[in-house]
Order: sequence, then C-alpha cells, then structure tokens
Amino acid sequence: MSDIKPILNAADANLDTSLEKLFDLVRIPSISTDPKYNDDCQKTAQYLSDYLNELGFDASVRQTTGHPMVVGHHEGAHKDAPHVLFYGHYDVQPVDPLELWDYAPFEPQIMERNGRKVIAGRGTSDDKGQLMTFVEACRAYKQINRSLPCKITILFEGEEESGSPSLQPFLEANKDELKADFALVCDTSMFDPETPAIPTSLRGLLGEEVTIHAASRDLHSGLYGGAAANPITILSRIIADLHDDEGRITIDGFYEGVHETPDHIKDMWKAVGKTDQEFLGEVGLSENFGETGRSAQELTWARPTTEINGIIGGYTDAGFKTVIPALASAKISFRLVGDQDADALRISFRKFVTDRLPKDCTASFQEHGASGGIQLSFDSPLIQKATKALSDEWPKPTVLVGMGGSIPIVGDFQTFLGMDSLLVGFGLADDQLHSPNEKYELTSFHKGIRSWIRILNELAPE
Amino acid sequence: MSDIKPILNAADANLDTSLEKLFDLVRIPSISTDPKYNDDCQKTAQYLSDYLNELGFDASVRQTTGHPMVVGHHEGAHKDAPHVLFYGHYDVQPVDPLELWDYAPFEPQIMERNGRKVIAGRGTSDDKGQLMTFVEACRAYKQINRSLPCKITILFEGEEESGSPSLQPFLEANKDELKADFALVCDTSMFDPETPAIPTSLRGLLGEEVTIHAASRDLHSGLYGGAAANPITILSRIIADLHDDEGRITIDGFYEGVHETPDHIKDMWKAVGKTDQEFLGEVGLSENFGETGRSAQELTWARPTTEINGIIGGYTDAGFKTVIPALASAKISFRLVGDQDADALRISFRKFVTDRLPKDCTASFQEHGASGGIQLSFDSPLIQKATKALSDEWPKPTVLVGMGGSIPIVGDFQTFLGMDSLLVGFGLADDQLHSPNEKYELTSFHKGIRSWIRILNELAPE
Repeated sequence: MSDIKPILNAADANLDTSLEKLFDLVRIPSISTDPKYNDDCQKTAQYLSDYLNELGFDASVRQTTGHPMVVGHHEGAHKDAPHVLFYGHYDVQPVDPLELWDYAPFEPQIMERNGRKVIAGRGTSDDKGQLMTFVEACRAYKQINRSLPCKITILFEGEEESGSPSLQPFLEANKDELKADFALVCDTSMFDPETPAIPTSLRGLLGEEVTIHAASRDLHSGLYGGAAANPITILSRIIADLHDDEGRITIDGFYEGVHETPDHIKDMWKAVGKTDQEFLGEVGLSENFGETGRSAQELTWARPTTEINGIIGGYTDAGFKTVIPALASAKISFRLVGDQDADALRISFRKFVTDRLPKDCTASFQEHGASGGIQLSFDSPLIQKATKALSDEWPKPTVLVGMGGSIPIVGDFQTFLGMDSLLVGFGLADDQLHSPNEKYELTSFHKGIRSWIRILNELAPE
Repeated sequence: MSDIKPILNAADANLDTSLEKLFDLVRIPSISTDPKYNDDCQKTAQYLSDYLNELGFDASVRQTTGHPMVVGHHEGAHKDAPHVLFYGHYDVQPVDPLELWDYAPFEPQIMERNGRKVIAGRGTSDDKGQLMTFVEACRAYKQINRSLPCKITILFEGEEESGSPSLQPFLEANKDELKADFALVCDTSMFDPETPAIPTSLRGLLGEEVTIHAASRDLHSGLYGGAAANPITILSRIIADLHDDEGRITIDGFYEGVHETPDHIKDMWKAVGKTDQEFLGEVGLSENFGETGRSAQELTWARPTTEINGIIGGYTDAGFKTVIPALASAKISFRLVGDQDADALRISFRKFVTDRLPKDCTASFQEHGASGGIQLSFDSPLIQKATKALSDEWPKPTVLVGMGGSIPIVGDFQTFLGMDSLLVGFGLADDQLHSPNEKYELTSFHKGIRSWIRILNELAPE
C-alpha cells in the first residue's frame, strides 16, 4: 500500500480536466440500438482507446459484428497483487421523447438540481460517468506513483443497452487475454447518497411457459360443462399448488442450494433498509406475500421465488362467451439464489406440472432462459477490502446488499471467464437512467474517483 | 279424445300440399340479423298470418320496433281442455359462406342425402319446418273434426336468430292475451332418428367477471418478486378453491335447490345414452372432470357447474416479461339447475372471492346475466301425455332428457307469463343448423305433423 493522500489530492486537483474528458465522451451520441449512431459508437470506442493509451495502457479498439469493444492492459507494480478486469459500457440509451428533457442530452453541463450539483446529460450516470471514475482513478494513481498497484485489464462494451449480442462470443474468443482474478464492474448504485453499497448476491432467472391442453377443440360449456376437463381450472390448481400455506415453494428440491443469510447481514439490512410497510407502501401494498417470517428486503434480495408473469386462456375480450377452451397457458419465472441449479429446477418444475395433470390432459413447455444466482462470500478478503475502502471515503459505512434482479455481465464473467465480480457503483436512485433528464451527481463522480483509488490501494500488497 | 286415425290419414294425404306451404315459406329469405331482408321478414309474417286466418285462426301481424310477431287465436271444442300457446320462429340464419352450400339455400327441394329423403334449404329445420309441423297438424285436425281439441294461441317470432330484442317487451305488453296453461315450443331435436325426446330440465346460466387488484401498478418481478402480492396467483388460488377433491363446488349454499334426479330417470338415460367414453371421446377426452360418481350425461344434463370461461393477466404476448401485474381477471359462469337461486348465488360467489383476498387486495365484479334452471316435473300429466303421444308415433319410446344449455324462450315464458313449456321437436343432430346445407328430414316433417296431432288429441278431455 502506498501513501494514499497525495493520490487523492491529485484526483481532487484533476477534477476539472476529468470532467472535460467525461464531457467529451457524453458529447458523442453513442446510442447502440439505433444504426444511425454506428459511427458515433466507433468514435466513442476510439476516444476511449486513445485516452487509455495516453495513460500508459496498451489499448486498442476491437471490432465485432456489432459495435466494437475497447480492451486495454496495464502491468502492475507488484507481482503478487491480483490481476483485475474492469468492465464498463460506453453505449447509451435513446433519448426520446426529447421534449421531456429540460436540457440537451448530448451537451453536458454542470447544473443545480434539487440543491445539488449534477452532471447533466445522456449517459452521465449510465455508464460513461461511472466508467470514467475508474479511468480517472488510474490517472491519479499513475501520476503520483508512476505505476498502478496491480495488473489491470479494462474492457469497455458498446452494446450493453441493446442486449450485448457480441459479448459472449468476444469473452469466449479472448478468454486467455481477459481472464483475471476477479472483475470490477461499475454500473450499480449507492444505497443512498451517503451510503456506499456492494451487492453480494444477485438473483438468477429461470423462465418457463407452460400450456395445458385438454379437449381437442373449444367446447360449449352448456353441452360439456361439468364433464369435460377445463384447462384454466387445471392450470389454476397447479399454480395454487406452487406455494404452501407458509409461502414456501413446493417444487421438489426447490430449496437445494439456497443458503440462509447470516444473522449479522440480516441485522445490517434491518438497520439501514426500509421497513416492509415503507417498501410495499410505495406500490399500494402493506403486507408481505412471500415466505412467512422474512422481511421484504430479505425476500427480494436473498430468497428464491416463483412468480406468474402472465396467464391467458379462453375468451378474454369484452362481454362473455360460454366456452371451455382447449388450452390455457402461463408464463412463470423463478428468481434463483445461491447455488440453485437452474437446469435441474426446470426439470423439477416440469415434473411438478405433469404430476398434477388429469389423465386426459397434456402440458407443453417453452423455455425462456436460465441463469443461476450469484452469491459472493460475505467475508472474502476482496469484499472486506472494498468495504473498508468505501467506508473510508463516504459519510456512512458500506452496506452489503442483495439485488433482486440479475446483471447479465456478472453471470457471463462467471460462466466464460470463471471469475467473480465486485460490483461498485456511485449512481443514485433518481439518476433517471433510461429516461429523460439523466444526470450523475458531481459528488458521485468526484468521490467515485477517490473510491476507486482507495480500492486499488487496498488491493496492493501491504 | 277423438278417433285419431282419420286425422292422421288426412295429414298423410295432405303431405304434398303441406310441403308446398313450407316451400313457400323457405323461399322468402327472412334473415333477421341483416336489415337488407327486413321486407322479407314482413312478407314471411304476412304469409303466416294469412295462412292461419285461412285455417280459421283469428290471426294478425303485430309490429314491433324490430321484425313483427304473428299472433293467432283459435277457440277449442272443449271448455275444460287446456289453453296452449304454441311458439316457433320464422326468421333464419344468414347463409354465408354461400360457396359451401351444395344447393341454393332459398330454393327448397326434396333430395336424397345419406340414403334419406330430406327437405333442403335454409330454415327447413330451424325453424320453419318445425313450426309448420304444428300448423299442418291443426289443419288436419280441423279438416276432420271441424274444430281444434283445445284453445290454441300461436306466437311466431321473427328475431330469434338475432337475440330476440322485441320478445320480452311484447310478452309483457300482451300478457293477458298470450298467457295460457302452458307453452308448446317446437325448436328442439329428437334423441336420435328413431327416438323422440322431451327435455324436462334446462340449465340456467349465471355469468360473473372478477378482477383481482393488487399493487397500484405493474411491478418488476426482480425488484418486488417474493414480497409483493401477485394477483394471478391469488386468482388461481380462488379458482382452485372452487371445487373440492370430489369435484363438488364449495361456494356456500351452492347446492341449495339442486334436486337429485330420480333413479328411474337416470336408468332411462343410462339405457339410451352415450357412455362417458363415447361422449367425451368425441372431443379427445375420456374421463369425467366433474363430481365423482356421476355420469357425463347426468353431469351435463342435471348438475350445476362452475366453469372458468376465460382468464387473463400480466404479459401474454410472445416472449417473456418479468412483470408482476397490478391485476388479473377471469370470466366465470355457473350452470344452474332445479331451484338454485341465481341472485343469491351471485352474492355467495362474491363473498367466496372476497373471503379469500389477502389484506392488500381487492376484487371488482361485473355481471353477465342470470337465469335460473328449468325443471319440469317428470310425472306431470302434460309430460305423461306427450310421452305417450310421441311413443305411439315413433319406432322407439320417448326419452326424457336434460339440456345442458338454456333456451331463453322457456325462461321468458316462465318469467313473463308464469307458465311452463313443453319442448317437442323433430330436428336431428346432423341438420346443419346455422351452417351451410341445412336440411330437415322428410320423416321429421311428416311424423312431426302426426306427432302434434297425437299430442293435441291427448290434451283433449277424455
């Protein structure tokens, strides 16, 4: 570890030029989903590659069948320090409806919003501002120490906002080059404006569509009602069976690989988080619907679920039709945690359904993706170091949080490069990601740079 | 009772002229749903009125806001004979797609189909041919006896195929004129080509649409899944609860007013009817889905049901969306029998739903009609006389059957004129009602006329 003060001071002194660099980036409208902006995506990648080379990285723009990647390498000062892969994305969301913006999305500026200084513009928070916190941390570090504390590979993607079609092939094709000890991903948020957060669990997702087939055609309920199997009723019974009276999911083996959250983590959540009433009250509810005896925070951050996302069968237009339909179907998703095995659960769910079918009925299934959950060890050295670094920088101590949804890049790094990800980000809940009036707090940018300096410093050997 | 032989002989001798009269009627395209044919409906009504007057009825065309009614009265020879109201409808279904017809729909002819002589044309079976069996029976009766055996009122409607909008107001406005001891309705079918049928029970229908409301907006299942109430799951649980393990409906008081079918009637059904395997096999099923221990015939003819006719909630288009919807809804119908009280059951069903709602959820309801079931006494003199009359005419004895669906006219006569209906008809299952190539068996027409002569004769005092 180096003396960190001068590096932090350098970052403070650099802030204006750091902002200029970010403004340069924001001015290029790198909207990945719209082919009109293909050249802008190329330009953004080139800008980043040039800048990394300027900072002493060995960087290049790497073409794909879509928008290019940027990859840069920098050796570290310490041979026994870890090798880290930093990930960010330089593409941004479209800006329509333009009339809802209070400012030009691609003319970045510092302005005051709600009494706070913000960097206004599309992509300032998602993800150009965030990725630049890391680049500017590297700049300050090198400026003072002439080197970086550990070997760093940087990967910038240009298709995150349009489904990342090139990412998996690129990871697979460049496995040896990109594989590091772990990844650093800067695309998430603070717990609140004073409290940094590190997600230690992310829920995976298993999607299934099931169709129950009964009679060979739609039937008149006057002629057949009471005798013929009704697939809506059968489907409803299966759905009703999915949970027991305690809200636990009854599919065979469903809880295999689900780990209890340690009490001290639950206590941390309780200390900082919203009450059930606060959390559910925002959407007109008040009572947990899931497993008895667990908080809404635990249920959404750390417990697996079965949700019916859609159902349809029979006559659903205006008015009434006395039909017994031939089929009914539902889209069902499972949020997975810990070491639950998505493929095994798909098989188990299908058996659950077919076990409950009356003799004359059949079920057909369509799969809609499968990704397991991510669970980092709460007390790994990496988490501990990052926790300390962030707590040193921000007014309040770091919180380890769960994420209810999945972040595909984390699963991809796990699957293709066999490495965990440390997710650290400085966005706030009101950053208006994907919406008009996107902004990034000036504090997020400035203290974000300082945070990465502290994390990098922690990663260097003592 | 008169000596019936000469009357039956007269009917036989009249057959050719009876057919001519029917052909005249069929030639007028009285399609009630299409305003292009308004004049044809008027013409048909006028034709029928003129013919009834010719036969000695006091008949007239009675205008409504839609197509006219025809009403005719004829006194009977016996003061202590009952007064009967005969009902038929002179309007017909549209004929499209015309290219699927093997013959011109409005150029009636006798032809051979499947080795049997049939009267080919739109409306021959539904209902011009059927109503003319009664008119021609009256003609033969009067021809020989100079009178009719009982007081007869005839009511022909011209809007049966388009929802009968004028019927209820007309019944209400002309209650005193139309009220009789009972109605004779000729718009149903034989049990099979050799076996006449009298429906003694018709199931009523109660329609409800229920919507379950949970969160104030659609939610992301990653952020809220496991904690927020899912209205599809709640609705499914309610639907699953509607039946117990024996297939019985669990709504409070549901079976009040449901009468067990007498054993001798069930035996009759068993002797003549289809097995469960035959009945359900036609639609790709094999096993009863309803109450344990009852045949498909009993379940569809004489038992009440709860059917889900439609369900919808969440995302139902192609692909997948991880949403927890704000609401989900189902269209649910109840087939009612015996003395079940539709209005009381609506209240009871709504209570069943609201009793099962989690604290945060609400249900809204929309009603889609209510009509009680019809149950005639199996051993009323009317049924006994008609049974004997039909058994005398046809190769096989009359079967008392149940009808799974409702026939609105029967409920209307009950509600507005306070009288039961005797349903006797001579259609066959393959008459192609509402479809191209409608036909009426020549035997149906001829023996139909003879059947009514026998029934009228049974109604005369001994």
